[in-house]
Amino acid sequence: MSVLIVGSTALDSIKTPVAEGHRLLGGSASYAAVAASLFAPVKLVGVVGTDFPKNYILLFKRRAIDLSALEVRPGKTFHWQGEYEPDMNRRRTLKTELGVFETFKPDLPESHRTAKFVLLANIAPALQLHVLEQMRKPRFVAADTMDLWLNTALNDLLKLLRHVDALILNDSEARHLAREINLLKAATKITGLGPKYVIIKKGEHGAILWDGKRPFVAPAYPLRNVVDPTGAGDTFAGALIGYLARARTCLPAAIRRGMIYGSVVASFCCEGLGLERTAVLTRQQIERRFKELKQLANF
Amino acid sequence: MSVLIVGSTALDSIKTPVAEGHRLLGGSASYAAVAASLFAPVKLVGVVGTDFPKNYILLFKRRAIDLSALEVRPGKTFHWQGEYEPDMNRRRTLKTELGVFETFKPDLPESHRTAKFVLLANIAPALQLHVLEQMRKPRFVAADTMDLWLNTALNDLLKLLRHVDALILNDSEARHLAREINLLKAATKITGLGPKYVIIKKGEHGAILWDGKRPFVAPAYPLRNVVDPTGAGDTFAGALIGYLARARTCLPAAIRRGMIYGSVVASFCCEGLGLERTAVLTRQQIERRFKELKQLANF
Repeated sequence: MSVLIVGSTALDSIKTPVAEGHRLLGGSASYAAVAASLFAPVKLVGVVGTDFPKNYILLFKRRAIDLSALEVRPGKTFHWQGEYEPDMNRRRTLKTELGVFETFKPDLPESHRTAKFVLLANIAPALQLHVLEQMRKPRFVAADTMDLWLNTALNDLLKLLRHVDALILNDSEARHLAREINLLKAATKITGLGPKYVIIKKGEHGAILWDGKRPFVAPAYPLRNVVDPTGAGDTFAGALIGYLARARTCLPAAIRRGMIYGSVVASFCCEGLGLERTAVLTRQQIERRFKELKQLANF
Repeated sequence: MSVLIVGSTALDSIKTPVAEGHRLLGGSASYAAVAASLFAPVKLVGVVGTDFPKNYILLFKRRAIDLSALEVRPGKTFHWQGEYEPDMNRRRTLKTELGVFETFKPDLPESHRTAKFVLLANIAPALQLHVLEQMRKPRFVAADTMDLWLNTALNDLLKLLRHVDALILNDSEARHLAREINLLKAATKITGLGPKYVIIKKGEHGAILWDGKRPFVAPAYPLRNVVDPTGAGDTFAGALIGYLARARTCLPAAIRRGMIYGSVVASFCCEGLGLERTAVLTRQQIERRFKELKQLANF
């Protein structure tokens, strides 16, 4: 089954302690779409400017990603510039140029409205809602978000939460949204806002799934060489939804496995600059690391 | 088989956001000994002053802990006072009064020198070494440590490391000792200093075992109500060594299971103030939570 992914499509200029790149393919939807495409057919919804490099279009096409809802508009592509601190758990944003993204309001083609698995990757909640309203009976809708929207668009986000099956966010965002330090209590509060599932990302410490009754504790794949953590969270979400679409199910056991695939693909993502590592991954490499992670967590 | 545990035996005055207690039973060896006693017979090596409450002696005795090497000296028991910040991941030390601990240099009775499993709980590395030198062919020696000794007694610690099987320390201490941010690289450097195993505690994020070849990623039991995290790390180490002594093995698979028992008992520890919860634990409660943790981490 196919996955519809909406979010940002951007050019990223990134500096980490070990790597640096200028105007790399980035944005939440780009990372999520490439990751999901490793498991299922993907329809990408986004906008880029006329400066968007052809190479990146080719990269998406090599992953068989449907680009019929990727608008190309006169103007500049969303550009983000950031720099990581030595431990790579924190980063500073040096520049954000919205470009054509500022007026983005996607109208989905008919072919896209019937996708059964939907990932509303990180983007303004009003836009996530706008896309969701155009969908016809999706089977599973996951939304990612970020701190910015908790501060600037909380009402839109709360409205969105009443219509999604799963909210994916990181630990500090979960604490912020729920105004609660304890993560299990925070997750419980968030399911009270609408979503059946809350998935809390903890970076190198893995992720937690809360299904309203009990937690699932997903390990991260321990990495020896982190090159660039940009997009790891989007990659996690993309691989998860891609796995669910491939498995044609959204039962809790599948979500657990999907989160492990998310951890696995996100770990590869961190081993390269931007999308360089993820874009060339093979299913065999993914399965091998999945098995390895299962062994590393076995007791 | 029995476990010998040396470390601090103290009185703790603790304030957390949800609980407060004055002159509670504390110290690394107290926490570790009570935890280990849930699995195997324990011989405690330590020192207390004449002010040490009889109740605490009775608590140890109820856990059948051998106190023949717990010295009672004229003077005051080591007293620590600390206060936790709202998220309980950080604490401030308000007072440290060493008391009789200042001149502690234990001579082990003959009966203690043949223990096969040894935990050198957190205490000055010179003292850990002094105890270890008195042991006759222990089968498995684990040492815990803390930041303080990295700063004030590094040479002693490095000397100790050449003689222990496992070093247990937390993530920031591992990074500090190895002068390396990446935990796998840090663990690899630390095994290069002597220990066959390095166990890195990550608090609520679980722990990592490095055996020189591959990591094991141990989950923490997710807690909804943390009352007091004091001694959780010592409890983890105590339960681990106690489990190994009971299993009469120190093979990697047993260390993995021992770490999970460590996580389980440490989770109970955090649910009470000081040792109040751990001291009354039953094997049935431990086994039930072990199984639950296995399910919560299953994929």
